[in-house]
Amino acid sequence: MTVLMSALSWVAYQERLQDDSLVLLLPCGALEQHGPHLPLGTDALLSAAIAQSVATNLNGLVAPTLSYGYKSQPKSGGGQHFPGTTSLDGQSLSQITRDVIREFARHGVKNLVVVDGHYENQWFLTEGIDLAMRELGTAHPLSIMRLEYWDFCTEETLSHVFPDGFPGFALEHAAVIETSLMLHFCPDLVALDRLPTIAPANFPPYDMYPTRTEWVPQSGVLSSAKGASAEKGRLMAEQLTESITKAIRHEFSSVQ
Amino acid sequence: MTVLMSALSWVAYQERLQDDSLVLLLPCGALEQHGPHLPLGTDALLSAAIAQSVATNLNGLVAPTLSYGYKSQPKSGGGQHFPGTTSLDGQSLSQITRDVIREFARHGVKNLVVVDGHYENQWFLTEGIDLAMRELGTAHPLSIMRLEYWDFCTEETLSHVFPDGFPGFALEHAAVIETSLMLHFCPDLVALDRLPTIAPANFPPYDMYPTRTEWVPQSGVLSSAKGASAEKGRLMAEQLTESITKAIRHEFSSVQ
Amino acid sequence: MTVLMSALSWVAYQERLQDDSLVLLLPCGALEQHGPHLPLGTDALLSAAIAQSVATNLNGLVAPTLSYGYKSQPKSGGGQHFPGTTSLDGQSLSQITRDVIREFARHGVKNLVVVDGHYENQWFLTEGIDLAMRELGTAHPLSIMRLEYWDFCTEETLSHVFPDGFPGFALEHAAVIETSLMLHFCPDLVALDRLPTIAPANFPPYDMYPTRTEWVPQSGVLSSAKGASAEKGRLMAEQLTESITKAIRHEFSSVQ
Amino acid sequence: MTVLMSALSWVAYQERLQDDSLVLLLPCGALEQHGPHLPLGTDALLSAAIAQSVATNLNGLVAPTLSYGYKSQPKSGGGQHFPGTTSLDGQSLSQITRDVIREFARHGVKNLVVVDGHYENQWFLTEGIDLAMRELGTAHPLSIMRLEYWDFCTEETLSHVFPDGFPGFALEHAAVIETSLMLHFCPDLVALDRLPTIAPANFPPYDMYPTRTEWVPQSGVLSSAKGASAEKGRLMAEQLTESITKAIRHEFSSVQ
Amino acid sequence: MTVLMSALSWVAYQERLQDDSLVLLLPCGALEQHGPHLPLGTDALLSAAIAQSVATNLNGLVAPTLSYGYKSQPKSGGGQHFPGTTSLDGQSLSQITRDVIREFARHGVKNLVVVDGHYENQWFLTEGIDLAMRELGTAHPLSIMRLEYWDFCTEETLSHVFPDGFPGFALEHAAVIETSLMLHFCPDLVALDRLPTIAPANFPPYDMYPTRTEWVPQSGVLSSAKGASAEKGRLMAEQLTESITKAIRHEFSSVQ
Amino acid sequence: MTVLMSALSWVAYQERLQDDSLVLLLPCGALEQHGPHLPLGTDALLSAAIAQSVATNLNGLVAPTLSYGYKSQPKSGGGQHFPGTTSLDGQSLSQITRDVIREFARHGVKNLVVVDGHYENQWFLTEGIDLAMRELGTAHPLSIMRLEYWDFCTEETLSHVFPDGFPGFALEHAAVIETSLMLHFCPDLVALDRLPTIAPANFPPYDMYPTRTEWVPQSGVLSSAKGASAEKGRLMAEQLTESITKAIRHEFSSVQ
Repeated sequence: MTVLMSALSWVAYQERLQDDSLVLLLPCGALEQHGPHLPLGTDALLSAAIAQSVATNLNGLVAPTLSYGYKSQPKSGGGQHFPGTTSLDGQSLSQITRDVIREFARHGVKNLVVVDGHYENQWFLTEGIDLAMRELGTAHPLSIMRLEYWDFCTEETLSHVFPDGFPGFALEHAAVIETSLMLHFCPDLVALDRLPTIAPANFPPYDMYPTRTEWVPQSGVLSSAKGASAEKGRLMAEQLTESITKAIRHEFSSVQ
Repeated sequence: MTVLMSALSWVAYQERLQDDSLVLLLPCGALEQHGPHLPLGTDALLSAAIAQSVATNLNGLVAPTLSYGYKSQPKSGGGQHFPGTTSLDGQSLSQITRDVIREFARHGVKNLVVVDGHYENQWFLTEGIDLAMRELGTAHPLSIMRLEYWDFCTEETLSHVFPDGFPGFALEHAAVIETSLMLHFCPDLVALDRLPTIAPANFPPYDMYPTRTEWVPQSGVLSSAKGASAEKGRLMAEQLTESITKAIRHEFSSVQ
Repeated sequence: MTVLMSALSWVAYQERLQDDSLVLLLPCGALEQHGPHLPLGTDALLSAAIAQSVATNLNGLVAPTLSYGYKSQPKSGGGQHFPGTTSLDGQSLSQITRDVIREFARHGVKNLVVVDGHYENQWFLTEGIDLAMRELGTAHPLSIMRLEYWDFCTEETLSHVFPDGFPGFALEHAAVIETSLMLHFCPDLVALDRLPTIAPANFPPYDMYPTRTEWVPQSGVLSSAKGASAEKGRLMAEQLTESITKAIRHEFSSVQ
Repeated sequence: MTVLMSALSWVAYQERLQDDSLVLLLPCGALEQHGPHLPLGTDALLSAAIAQSVATNLNGLVAPTLSYGYKSQPKSGGGQHFPGTTSLDGQSLSQITRDVIREFARHGVKNLVVVDGHYENQWFLTEGIDLAMRELGTAHPLSIMRLEYWDFCTEETLSHVFPDGFPGFALEHAAVIETSLMLHFCPDLVALDRLPTIAPANFPPYDMYPTRTEWVPQSGVLSSAKGASAEKGRLMAEQLTESITKAIRHEFSSVQ
Repeated sequence: MTVLMSALSWVAYQERLQDDSLVLLLPCGALEQHGPHLPLGTDALLSAAIAQSVATNLNGLVAPTLSYGYKSQPKSGGGQHFPGTTSLDGQSLSQITRDVIREFARHGVKNLVVVDGHYENQWFLTEGIDLAMRELGTAHPLSIMRLEYWDFCTEETLSHVFPDGFPGFALEHAAVIETSLMLHFCPDLVALDRLPTIAPANFPPYDMYPTRTEWVPQSGVLSSAKGASAEKGRLMAEQLTESITKAIRHEFSSVQ
Repeated sequence: MTVLMSALSWVAYQERLQDDSLVLLLPCGALEQHGPHLPLGTDALLSAAIAQSVATNLNGLVAPTLSYGYKSQPKSGGGQHFPGTTSLDGQSLSQITRDVIREFARHGVKNLVVVDGHYENQWFLTEGIDLAMRELGTAHPLSIMRLEYWDFCTEETLSHVFPDGFPGFALEHAAVIETSLMLHFCPDLVALDRLPTIAPANFPPYDMYPTRTEWVPQSGVLSSAKGASAEKGRLMAEQLTESITKAIRHEFSSVQ
């Protein structure tokens, strides 16, 4: 049975909403350069894939992905100077987030999980959620969880994925984690033969505007994806799904 | 070879942009009730399907669909009181349209086609395009075509699809045209057994606010989809694809 | 006795509001080219004239006209490249619509009719109404009707006005209907001797941006106004007034 | 010959614009309580009347009045608690001002005069003008004058109108100046028999929110209009017209 | 004991809020040229100084100053062409005003005084207050006083400060009042030796855009500050503090 | 000599701008709970103090602090439920950032450093900077550095400050770093006797809305400030100042 809200008729959706424990997940991605080996849609694909795995566990539903995200930053996503990176103004992203939450609330959704797959989205999603909650008022029964999926990686998983030690999430753009997950979820979209061999980017503790494009590796990859594998992707996908599922069960009292 | 922009790496996308005749298509849909027999994502699915067919003809690319659209109106989409219908404020839709066009222009796109599959989107897409064009200035080489795909149906096609006479597009919500196209493109998502038998809705020449929900058939279908078939869907899809392809070749001088 | 709200003192207006059946009409026009024979203010003049006729029937009131409207489109109003056409951004029009409705609601108006005389206004008026209704909340007693006046033309009227067959509203910009109505309501502002002789414009089923100005007849008239007459204008004005009056009586329960 | 831009065809308007010395005047009013003896539209009527007088002198044109203005303040207009007062949010007023100036600039207008007849409009008009000028850039040939018409009253005129001494503009809401001007321009709309006899309102040097409605005379008149006469209105109208005409000739170098 | 809210811990602030009679003052300034002898921060410094004096009287608190204000106008602040003048768009100022009031209301503040020290701020502060009050609704216990501090000068004070007659507030930019107050409150920031000797500026009764910079004295001072003294500053500061204190006690019923 | 821009006259400021190597620093703080021992203004005070130290090194200037910041988040600042925390909407903060940068650019500032002292500000400052840069265009000579000051702490400094090992910045709200810096810069505002003894907060890897206030220690302190000292504050202040100074010299080519 599908977990995609978009694949249900309104009648079927309404039936599902009779159950107060229904969890709706909203994947939030981006259209953003991910090096020569990963597709522009990586963040949207991964946030949707993980949301669907979790929804399958919980008999939940997944809303259509927000496919465009906030502006890519040099130190986390390579920056806005790459062709293909297609970003929204902060206010636009906050407003569409507010708008769809307002609608989910009208439908009677009680348990919403915003699954972010693009680091730069975080604060504008947060603002959109806050604007919606203010509008709904304190008496409304809707609760929302917002998460960046990689934050659920356990140390155990990270030690498997990075046997030589985990260098931290900061440079994990188009690197081992995302490449492995894509090899697991969408292997046809990964061009392993185009994997650049690079040293990790080395960024100073500040940002410059206009972007200092010379700081960013020409490939757009911030640290090497060498060592990525479908097997590591599977491992992470399973652990992330399990951990997120567990967190949802923990936080939304009606969800078992 | 894929026509999906989201499936390309930025390097591959950049290569494609070397060709000034590249056409990029942006499908614009909605998450909106389409009766008990069609899924909420119908407008997004159909605009994307048609955009992909046209892109295949033209060796073009298709950007990620705008999956959420403007508010459903009673007389064209049933109205905002149905669960599942998930709509954006007008300003939000105009802004994201403006934002992605600004980005496509930065990439060097010269030929953009906005493929609208949700009637209510039209004016807010138009405003978004206008805001982007104003910002780009008159010297920018980007040209844009905006279309509602059904407007390309020829009289010949309509006479095949409606052998008893075409009653007009006004009530074609979740009716023969959309149901046939969905039977062609996404047959698994159509529940023909749930097709309501209804007389066409009968709307007065004005709108009332708050919505007079009693005007709208309870099913959300504005006229019967009886007579819909995958064969009619195929016929329409082929003719629409051919006609839109031809129009693009006609209007964008560099496109053969 | 005047039907103009602007001509009443606040005391007189307040007295009128004691009657719950009071209907307030808000005409919405534009400042837009209407060919060499009609004035720029045509849409504002006609929406106000019809609103006043209806108000006279119903002992209602007419608020000051929104004199500036949304951007003229090539296929319905000739486009934004004509001098004289003076248009608002979509958000601006929606906001002033929301603002005045918020105020009418504060005054205690129960029955509001938004009389649109400019096709391009429709969706931004709709959005403004929706924003106001959301703000007022579901318990507020204000009901609103929104109409484009020409949609009330009966087939009988159209067959009198177009004895050779009604070609449809699409090209009726500065053509027979508007010219006839202006000859009836404001004959001094019509320059019949400047009526261009043109074949109807022939538009493709899509729009191009920047505007393809070569699609639009140089005069700004989309189909010939030959055949327009004050008599036809009177006929239409009377029928429209009667039909709109009847619709208001039908929809607003307190109005007799 | 008409001075109303709305009464011209676009062709006639374009011809007028060939003359670089053409002055366009934009009256800005309000729909606001003006006591029991003056109509709600007073500010719109007076700003338009004066703009038309000046336009006649200068062979200029008058654009459609902005009929709705910024929120009435207790100490200058009685406040927002009166029925009939129908006001815009500040941002809305600034945006429509910006929008119409953007359009006048596109038409080729070089000399624009914003004639304000509602005190509360001043700053939001100023902001709208500033936003338009920023958008047009420093090289654009458009110049704008903004004025509140009463500021052109000479001391000589004031000493005629107020033989017992001019108490200042602060309380001149629905009082001697506006009543006299209305008796001159629109005598049928003045109900002299409803003139309240009141002592001047006595306001403290600060404002309170929510409005202290008890500060405001119940009639909405801030000081007595006793002494108003059509003759005084004529005198003021003539002097204001002459002074404004002279100022325009002085400031716009191409205007004689 | 400090009157600065920013110097209190949240625990101490919460304790103070137990007292319903607590008055919170919000100083609103600008960063704006004030001639060669006064610092750019004059309006922020003076509004904060006066707010602190009043707070000391009332055992109240002073919130952090809004340090940036609305755009300087030629006739009241010299205009936007001076380096150093650093201004906000009107909407920005209204929004931050609305935002901080929304928060003070959440804290439980009942008595708020907005102390404006920059003439051009007035209307955008008013709009921000109105937007906040609308959002809070009519039942909320927050009351707000908004004042421009100079409006509290008594005639007696003015006759001391201007022994040759008070020419009015219009040209009092960087002139006797502000210079005297700065000599009293911040003597180290006044460069009396740089005081320009100028005749009062002579402005016409209208504004021109783009700014006619030649209207404005090159120094930015609108009338001479000769005659300013710390003693006059002290006199004014004391009287203003006393009068504002008294007004607050009068208007906020719980404040003694 | 002062480094405060607000303490200079416009003439003095203009003189300073003759030097293309002038650095202007903009401190960005917040009014936010910082436990029972630190004042609400901590972030504003510290960002300003550090900016002033750096400016002293570089003969630069410091603009008035943005005293109000973005909404406090439970896991980094305790959340919005504390009295005293006074936050702006994201759009408001982005707009005032854009506005003041637009003005600094007009003045001729070439080297701007945005010194953020409130973690939650980061993304809305970034958006404001981006909006300003877009408006200024690519040819404008203004360069901007944006930094969160704590990111400049060297490992050596951290090992001195945290002899038992640095637990990471995540819980450093009102903890050792901020308390030590406040003891150095503003000792009178620290109430060491009110320091709560708490275990570090333990947050899950996601956020919940409405805020789960029970996650947050009642004191608002996220980890213990035990071990804070003025000496550690001095050490950090000196190292941060030196490192930031060095980074500015490195990035702005004209600055020595």
